Amino acid sequence: MTDLVTLEDLRAAQKRIAGTAVRTPLLPSLHGDTDRPLWLKPENLQPIGAFKIRGAYNAIAALSEADRSRGVVAHSSGNHAQAVAYAARAFGVKAVIVMPDTTPQVKIDATRALGAEIVIVTPDRRDIAAGELAQEHGYAFVPPYDDSRIVAGQGTTGLEIVEDLPTVDTVLVPVSGGGLISGIAAAVKLTDPRIKVIGVEPELAADAAQSFRTGVRTTWSTADTYRTIADGLRTTSVGVIPFAHIQAYVDDIVTVTEAQIREAMHFLALRARLVAEPSGAVATAAYLFRKDALPAGREHVAVVSGGNVDPALYAEVTA
Amino acid sequence: MTDLVTLEDLRAAQKRIAGTAVRTPLLPSLHGDTDRPLWLKPENLQPIGAFKIRGAYNAIAALSEADRSRGVVAHSSGNHAQAVAYAARAFGVKAVIVMPDTTPQVKIDATRALGAEIVIVTPDRRDIAAGELAQEHGYAFVPPYDDSRIVAGQGTTGLEIVEDLPTVDTVLVPVSGGGLISGIAAAVKLTDPRIKVIGVEPELAADAAQSFRTGVRTTWSTADTYRTIADGLRTTSVGVIPFAHIQAYVDDIVTVTEAQIREAMHFLALRARLVAEPSGAVATAAYLFRKDALPAGREHVAVVSGGNVDPALYAEVTA
Repeated sequence: MTDLVTLEDLRAAQKRIAGTAVRTPLLPSLHGDTDRPLWLKPENLQPIGAFKIRGAYNAIAALSEADRSRGVVAHSSGNHAQAVAYAARAFGVKAVIVMPDTTPQVKIDATRALGAEIVIVTPDRRDIAAGELAQEHGYAFVPPYDDSRIVAGQGTTGLEIVEDLPTVDTVLVPVSGGGLISGIAAAVKLTDPRIKVIGVEPELAADAAQSFRTGVRTTWSTADTYRTIADGLRTTSVGVIPFAHIQAYVDDIVTVTEAQIREAMHFLALRARLVAEPSGAVATAAYLFRKDALPAGREHVAVVSGGNVDPALYAEVTA
Repeated sequence: MTDLVTLEDLRAAQKRIAGTAVRTPLLPSLHGDTDRPLWLKPENLQPIGAFKIRGAYNAIAALSEADRSRGVVAHSSGNHAQAVAYAARAFGVKAVIVMPDTTPQVKIDATRALGAEIVIVTPDRRDIAAGELAQEHGYAFVPPYDDSRIVAGQGTTGLEIVEDLPTVDTVLVPVSGGGLISGIAAAVKLTDPRIKVIGVEPELAADAAQSFRTGVRTTWSTADTYRTIADGLRTTSVGVIPFAHIQAYVDDIVTVTEAQIREAMHFLALRARLVAEPSGAVATAAYLFRKDALPAGREHVAVVSGGNVDPALYAEVTA
């Protein structure tokens, strides 16, 4: 039995992250349907280009000063790496980030530029190496999503949505490891159970949708999940703690195609002036192309979760 | 002798536009110099993709109900057209927009989609046609920049900057007709005269820089100003009311090259996840490339004034 985050946890996280994470606005779009207004929550505008700063900062802020002062360790090939590095720097403590040797050099450099020490390992060693470093040096481990402090941190996004638009009917959220949707769903449902929370995944990495339908947390192979361009959503299963939140609070998980993700990136650039990475565009894709699969409802919010896109892919999509 | 807007005018405007214009956040950039932190004020995220909504809404809100109910008229080939249409629609009153027959069809369609009636004229007839329509139908004329209500509306951007970052040293602002920089400069200097306000123009449309240096409001030919890709900054002279504000409150006006504007658009897309039009990128270009011309100072804010970019140009710049 997993404990779910409470409104108290969420509000404590909101206080902790104020001044570090940007309080992103809710942007009304002129290009939604008249009977289904669209609002965008631009988490791509966070300092590191993704919502991950909320959870990482909350987790590190929640440590005792003694624990924190010994430094933190995390493993990530993506936005979590930069989030932990950024949050640790804000506290003036050491961050060690374990990255698989398949990580693009540009992400390694960006994480190092934030002051983190980088340890490169083979992909199968990332968890183990982080654990070993934690044990050997006394670093506090900051998990990417399977952690209540991370869930509460990401969930502050949901508190802000309902603060800014109490009349929202449907909130659309990308799903990968499940930290973001867990936190948002808890925040939204604990504030107003009437509001629907819908997860969105690529068709090609739909492990969470399958888990949701079967009621059993399912793992896909990386051979499958790595087919999608949405590199932030290739996690092969949702975490244990996120899955408990998804079962308690999420109304449905829908899927989008690769073509729909590309179209949504184009829409976000030229209609909303936002640069989204593929993972950051899936919720908008669901609004634009999966009306058939969404609950009836008027006001829609799509969470634009990140904007760290490969320049070549971005040029291709916006052309 | 022109009256300058007061803090009271600015605060009244701020109250009027709340809920219509987005309260844009100040975004810290990870890619500024360590000793010169950069913050971005993303006005490209306003519903119509530019700051112009602030002034247009304030001007229309300031009308008496009787005047407003007869409808409004404006002339514009750009963002002011959509701003007036959007603001009029928010009040449920008629908007007639006079557009030169050189206006791209996409901008005509976008303005019509906001419910405005469009009147197409030859470029030399735009002022006259708007005046005639105002007289004949009793429409209230909403000028693009040479108007205190417009200046006060745009100036709310400046109030927000000093609210969010009281320690700011230098604010960089694009200059065209001068409404935006006038309002921001008034808001900033009336709050804290220590803060420097610097205008930025393309080298190829530097009428305001010349006016500032000579102390005489100077007009350039459209043959000259139309050389820049920054189509929002091709106005051939600043307005009378803006020039009075510029003389009273602006510290300097610097220029940037076409290549620097393109580089700044690229920087904003890939480093700040913001889609900027060329005009919207000039202040960032000055931060990146004109350090030599800027006053010493630590915290810098660059106003990203708009994001309504031609898709072909955008694809070219981000490639």
